[in-house]
Amino acid sequence: MIEIRFPDQSLRTYAEGTTPFKIAQGISEGLARNVLSAKFNDQVVEASTPLLEDGNIQLFTWNDDLGKNAFWHSSAHVLAQAILALYPNAKLTIGPAIEKGFYYDVDFGTHSITEKELKDIEKKFLEFARQKFEFKMRSASKQEALDFYHKDENPYKVELIENLEDGTITFCDHADFTDLCRGGHIPHTGFIKAVKLLNVAGAYWRGDEKNKQLTRVYGISFPKQKELTEYLELFEEAKKRDHRKLGKELELFTFSQKVGQGLPLWLPKGAALRERLESFLKAAQKKAGYEQVISPHIGNKELYMTSGHYEKYGEDSFQPIETPAEGETFLLKPMNCPHHCEIYNTRPWSYKELPKRYAEFGTVYRYEQSGELHGLTRVRGFTQDDAHIFCTPDQLDQEFKNVIDLVLYVFGSLGFDNFQAQVSIRDPTKPEKYIGDTANWEKAEQAIIDAAQEKGLDFVIEKGEAAFYGPKLDFMVKDALGRKWQLGTIQVDYNLPERFDLTYKGSDNELHRPIMIHRAPFGSLERFVAILLEHTGGNFPLWLAPTQVNLLSVSEKHEKYAQKVLNFLENNEIRGSLDNRNETIGKKIREAELSKVPFMLILGEKEAELKNVSVRKHRKGDVGAMSLESFAELIEKEVSESISKFEN
Amino acid sequence: MIEIRFPDQSLRTYAEGTTPFKIAQGISEGLARNVLSAKFNDQVVEASTPLLEDGNIQLFTWNDDLGKNAFWHSSAHVLAQAILALYPNAKLTIGPAIEKGFYYDVDFGTHSITEKELKDIEKKFLEFARQKFEFKMRSASKQEALDFYHKDENPYKVELIENLEDGTITFCDHADFTDLCRGGHIPHTGFIKAVKLLNVAGAYWRGDEKNKQLTRVYGISFPKQKELTEYLELFEEAKKRDHRKLGKELELFTFSQKVGQGLPLWLPKGAALRERLESFLKAAQKKAGYEQVISPHIGNKELYMTSGHYEKYGEDSFQPIETPAEGETFLLKPMNCPHHCEIYNTRPWSYKELPKRYAEFGTVYRYEQSGELHGLTRVRGFTQDDAHIFCTPDQLDQEFKNVIDLVLYVFGSLGFDNFQAQVSIRDPTKPEKYIGDTANWEKAEQAIIDAAQEKGLDFVIEKGEAAFYGPKLDFMVKDALGRKWQLGTIQVDYNLPERFDLTYKGSDNELHRPIMIHRAPFGSLERFVAILLEHTGGNFPLWLAPTQVNLLSVSEKHEKYAQKVLNFLENNEIRGSLDNRNETIGKKIREAELSKVPFMLILGEKEAELKNVSVRKHRKGDVGAMSLESFAELIEKEVSESISKFEN
Repeated sequence: MIEIRFPDQSLRTYAEGTTPFKIAQGISEGLARNVLSAKFNDQVVEASTPLLEDGNIQLFTWNDDLGKNAFWHSSAHVLAQAILALYPNAKLTIGPAIEKGFYYDVDFGTHSITEKELKDIEKKFLEFARQKFEFKMRSASKQEALDFYHKDENPYKVELIENLEDGTITFCDHADFTDLCRGGHIPHTGFIKAVKLLNVAGAYWRGDEKNKQLTRVYGISFPKQKELTEYLELFEEAKKRDHRKLGKELELFTFSQKVGQGLPLWLPKGAALRERLESFLKAAQKKAGYEQVISPHIGNKELYMTSGHYEKYGEDSFQPIETPAEGETFLLKPMNCPHHCEIYNTRPWSYKELPKRYAEFGTVYRYEQSGELHGLTRVRGFTQDDAHIFCTPDQLDQEFKNVIDLVLYVFGSLGFDNFQAQVSIRDPTKPEKYIGDTANWEKAEQAIIDAAQEKGLDFVIEKGEAAFYGPKLDFMVKDALGRKWQLGTIQVDYNLPERFDLTYKGSDNELHRPIMIHRAPFGSLERFVAILLEHTGGNFPLWLAPTQVNLLSVSEKHEKYAQKVLNFLENNEIRGSLDNRNETIGKKIREAELSKVPFMLILGEKEAELKNVSVRKHRKGDVGAMSLESFAELIEKEVSESISKFEN
Repeated sequence: MIEIRFPDQSLRTYAEGTTPFKIAQGISEGLARNVLSAKFNDQVVEASTPLLEDGNIQLFTWNDDLGKNAFWHSSAHVLAQAILALYPNAKLTIGPAIEKGFYYDVDFGTHSITEKELKDIEKKFLEFARQKFEFKMRSASKQEALDFYHKDENPYKVELIENLEDGTITFCDHADFTDLCRGGHIPHTGFIKAVKLLNVAGAYWRGDEKNKQLTRVYGISFPKQKELTEYLELFEEAKKRDHRKLGKELELFTFSQKVGQGLPLWLPKGAALRERLESFLKAAQKKAGYEQVISPHIGNKELYMTSGHYEKYGEDSFQPIETPAEGETFLLKPMNCPHHCEIYNTRPWSYKELPKRYAEFGTVYRYEQSGELHGLTRVRGFTQDDAHIFCTPDQLDQEFKNVIDLVLYVFGSLGFDNFQAQVSIRDPTKPEKYIGDTANWEKAEQAIIDAAQEKGLDFVIEKGEAAFYGPKLDFMVKDALGRKWQLGTIQVDYNLPERFDLTYKGSDNELHRPIMIHRAPFGSLERFVAILLEHTGGNFPLWLAPTQVNLLSVSEKHEKYAQKVLNFLENNEIRGSLDNRNETIGKKIREAELSKVPFMLILGEKEAELKNVSVRKHRKGDVGAMSLESFAELIEKEVSESISKFEN
């Protein structure tokens, strides 16, 4: 008999050799039907693995990340089985579960898989799945494993096995299919009720472009057909909202190979959008006592030697810039903090003058491999809505709360209502990993936790996740499609004040070290605009829309009146754009609708005569005719409803 | 007899061997008293040079640059004479006239010249000057010249002579002093009535730091004592207005060795000032139909290969930035135009959509030797108020005029009323030096000249001063101290549209090349702020002042009321700053006066009770008490008087 402890600390006794599946069955048939995977003594096991000693059990269902992982990992096996059934000469390589679904990299020789063939593979997949084949793990010696794949003429698996140690090699069998595998499966294939093979892409064996290119088949599977349908709908919607697609359609930004990959060029409408976001944050920051500063985009190597960035990141960064004479060395700035420390160091400070809050929309450059680049979310140059607060230890608590207020204000104004926070603190068992004295750390961690509680944040505390130089608070927002994005961060720093020898004179007339807070509510403007595009589908809140009103003149005759209306709007600080092309009004309306501009004004004979405007609202249609003044009021009212002023 | 032609084309006959001085005497004794130098057949000659052939004469007085040049060149001789009289072992090297005055580089051995000694040299200088020694040129063979300086044990002059060709060597004698010299003197030393030796500085022989360090003695001299007095007053005023000094006092900007020399850090007040300038120009540019764009601060090397910048400037620039992998090469951007060309190239254009006007406050980086750096006027990183207009040849004329309007508006709003323009056109005799077809050049040159005329500019036309890619118009402003500064520029460009293969579809449905106009009214924000500081002495126009009002609370009791007033001002978009330190009101007023903030409000018992403010104006003093609303109106009125809206 063995003793099994459950997560709620209850203990039960079972016969040696029981399985997680049987344990679940003992609890309820319902649970047994849903158990996909398990952990025993912190090791991932199969639902069918016999348990041979006392230990802690965790059972995972579809609702757990590890349950999904086992589900998709198992689905990759079935995909491989289906592929081999249809393409007996295909060579399998590797096929893992990923964040959403799974893939298998296959060498199809010279054959290219078509859309139609993906359908056939899906059919075969479901045919196998329905037969409820059990997944069974089996150990093999290195020689057996090599023999198997030599016979199979699969050089990829042979290469994989050659890198494994004898005694650690396992296979997983289901039906007549077998695959080299470390384990972590669902009980049988029958759990998989729905599958979709999403697309194929090229992928080099082991990610090395010198190796052969394989075909990566992406798929996703679910325990219910309904879940697949919902997923595909969301997937379609996400494709429509892809910020790269919207950015092009709305003429917000572009990339040029000549300028360089990962270096966005902001087109007029995008630059205006970005400026509006900056102005919005600047206004709030001004109220919150921040001061704008401006620093250059390069810094002498010495600056980054002092900050420690050079030692830590130098080799993997854009390489140094030498001067043609005089032997100086500069680096593209990867972050603004060292510059702000030097600004702080311009003159001595008294505790009475703190906190100093230096803000800068600072463009920084960080090298990313070209394969990692993705639209505006992963770039090589981006503008942080950065600020550094230099304060006394006594002020940290209040400053931290103030920053949370600002972050919440920003999220609220942009329609992100759904977010979580994470407080990252030290691993108290490893004090050697951290700089700064323990009392200060404890104070800072407690300040962050208190602040998060007081502000009513939904937060988790992660031990050991703090940076070596201080604890931090990160925000994750959920967008309209339920996807999570890491956004703003607030970070306490004891390191840079030390390295830059920052001081202030305390009330005791002695010099003390200030504490530094790094913070960026948006994170980066590039990434934020991308997320905002995907969240709103390009339907920006009225206050933010680059163009708020499209003025559509019915014919050339009405251009003069339209121009007058445009001037009126400009004088009322409403952003209008006049479409006076020689096109039909119908076409102009259709195009304006596509451009997602919140309002249109139709300006023709009647309107010119009555000196009014006919208003259409995006996605709502006709709103009726009104005076210019009434329209201006309408806009003002809608704007003030969607965005309040920051109060602190 | 020889025939002499005057600038007014009149001809006179003189005996061979007459001198410019005698010619002047023949015209009037007054002129003869003022003639300092002359040109004969376009060669600089002495007033005493015998004229031996027919030719054209130009006579120069103190009012001519060449007159001043001869005056100061001659003064350098007298300075050298005075130095040798007092320091017989000093070794002379070179001593030219400069833009304002002259200097002489002298090897004093180990001796350092003191303030007091400069006075003694001045005395000796004037003693010699009063004796009206004539300057006389004399030819010498190379051997004679070498012998003279070998005997004198002067290795510097020996080295100079060794590099000269025999037959071209001349000396100038006056009194018992002689110096190796090419000529260009005033008739005699008596013209010099006033001299001031300004300072001494170290200077390496031939500018090479490997050579011996010499002592450079700077001086300035005048034909009248009054002129020296005026000059010195202006010089003192200029020192007070030195933007480096004011920038520090007003806490506008700073430099850090760690960040790097020539890379300004804008402090909060400076950043606010700069942002105000940007907003001002942005608003005017928006009215003028410009669109803001944003481009990165680096570009792939390929971009600069295409633009031609790499070939032309690559070696003398900040060196390329390599990536740590993938072998890409980037450059810090030295100008924004290539990026804007790529933005234009994002999509096809029709002639109906032109002109496109892309504006960017683009920060560029250009390497300068550390010795060339000077405050904000000569830096390694600066932000251009840049824009590029892409237009059809038919639109060039109007666009150019529009740009002039904008530039004049900018100058006017910032109090630069005194300026000159220069139109730089081709040298028509050297067509091979220019790209683009002749008809377009003629059209563009004529367009610029017409525009300059129509806008009533005070301008000169300089042949051969155009860039190889197009003609241009430059503006020189005169500041409050009469100093000239090169500011805005407008440049036509046929080259980049060619290199970037820019096109638009014309009304003929064919593809055509647009013309590009580069323009920057400020030039660079750094340089402009420097000039503005020196022009205004830091007394910025009210609309521009970083802080418009200093609120001075009389004691702690009145802090709350002061805070209310500050909030009122903020709500009325007036930039206030509260001084609630525990200091006497007298001290607060004195410090506020020094900080050059245009207005102060005294806030004490009486004001809190009556809910009003006591107003003081910078450099004017008490203005009286008034309500908050009246004060807001006063500010608004002063602002709107000093800056109008741009109308186009």
